[in-house]
Amino acid sequence: MKTYPVTSKTGITRLAKRGVYDEATIHSILDEALFCTLAFVREGEAFQIPTGFCRIDNYLYVHGSVGSFYMRELAANKLKVCIAVTLMDGLVLARSAFHHSVNYRSVVTFSQAEKVEDRDELYRALEVFTNKMQPGRWDDIRKPNAGEWKATMVLKFKIEEASAKIRTGPPIDDMEDYDLPIWAGVVPLKLERQTYEADPKLKEGISIPSYLS
Amino acid sequence: MKTYPVTSKTGITRLAKRGVYDEATIHSILDEALFCTLAFVREGEAFQIPTGFCRIDNYLYVHGSVGSFYMRELAANKLKVCIAVTLMDGLVLARSAFHHSVNYRSVVTFSQAEKVEDRDELYRALEVFTNKMQPGRWDDIRKPNAGEWKATMVLKFKIEEASAKIRTGPPIDDMEDYDLPIWAGVVPLKLERQTYEADPKLKEGISIPSYLS
Repeated sequence: MKTYPVTSKTGITRLAKRGVYDEATIHSILDEALFCTLAFVREGEAFQIPTGFCRIDNYLYVHGSVGSFYMRELAANKLKVCIAVTLMDGLVLARSAFHHSVNYRSVVTFSQAEKVEDRDELYRALEVFTNKMQPGRWDDIRKPNAGEWKATMVLKFKIEEASAKIRTGPPIDDMEDYDLPIWAGVVPLKLERQTYEADPKLKEGISIPSYLS
Repeated sequence: MKTYPVTSKTGITRLAKRGVYDEATIHSILDEALFCTLAFVREGEAFQIPTGFCRIDNYLYVHGSVGSFYMRELAANKLKVCIAVTLMDGLVLARSAFHHSVNYRSVVTFSQAEKVEDRDELYRALEVFTNKMQPGRWDDIRKPNAGEWKATMVLKFKIEEASAKIRTGPPIDDMEDYDLPIWAGVVPLKLERQTYEADPKLKEGISIPSYLS
């Protein structure tokens, strides 16, 4: 099993048994998350940007406008970043307030910004990102033209250090609380896709793509 | 309408029309979000912690163990923090790759850590937090005992600067693309509660609370 090293930055100190370092688990959480938060230091203070992203091999990719202040700042200074994602899997309702919890899978990574200059890599990042958001979409749509490529910046972040933190399962109460007449259990949470809403400007006669129906 | 000031840290520079500064909107996004990411600077680098939180008036509250390294660090040094939340509302499928987007509501706030010492405020923060995760839950459960209170640290963060960024509605394509035979629209997303799962150790004869059924 391939694992990320446990470092002073990624070692889970609190509830260490929830810490996970294997690459396959970390990658699967990153691949399921539809957005991340990207944190960096500006003038001595922490900033965060919520943004879409995708993963290819051991890199995370983020794209934006060449006019984006923070994208330019990250690219120009090859800033160090901390990128995090969280998936909420359930509310854990214990008998005691103290043992209430949530089931979740989170990943925190440390990395450094690099601007993607290679055209093939740029194209591939956009394709993977688009198909991550909606599998099957890329082959269906009008691809970027020269002007659009010029307006798009892609940054990549090699995952240098990473850890996941995971909680699963029912509540764990104190022994003496199991006799209390209090309901306990888990309310699972799921980010679900609802029925699509066609663009009001959609021309008649265009059918729903198979990947949506 | 009460608004947060537009500052050098919170002014939305990219797609400025998506920037929102009114307090009611910002508070409603914070109240709907089940977790936030809390970013701060440690040894010159940005760190992030995903964590549950709640809002009371103009403060965000986070709780954790008194043994938590980062909680103690925030409290001891009254660190500056950036706290962010994001709600994903939909995938925006345009005719062109370039105009693909997401509907979302995000908030980024800037603040400073303060340890809550007042017992009533501490109690209230835990009550509001618990009822935010599961409305109605607090009155049902065993309240913290003296030892549990001793083990719990609560931090508060006055929202000093904040901005929201919001996208809604259908895709906006380039004029000439509306004639393409490509389906376009929105796939709404919703974090949904699934059917509850009773604790396998639940004693017989305990009925589901009304707020869950």
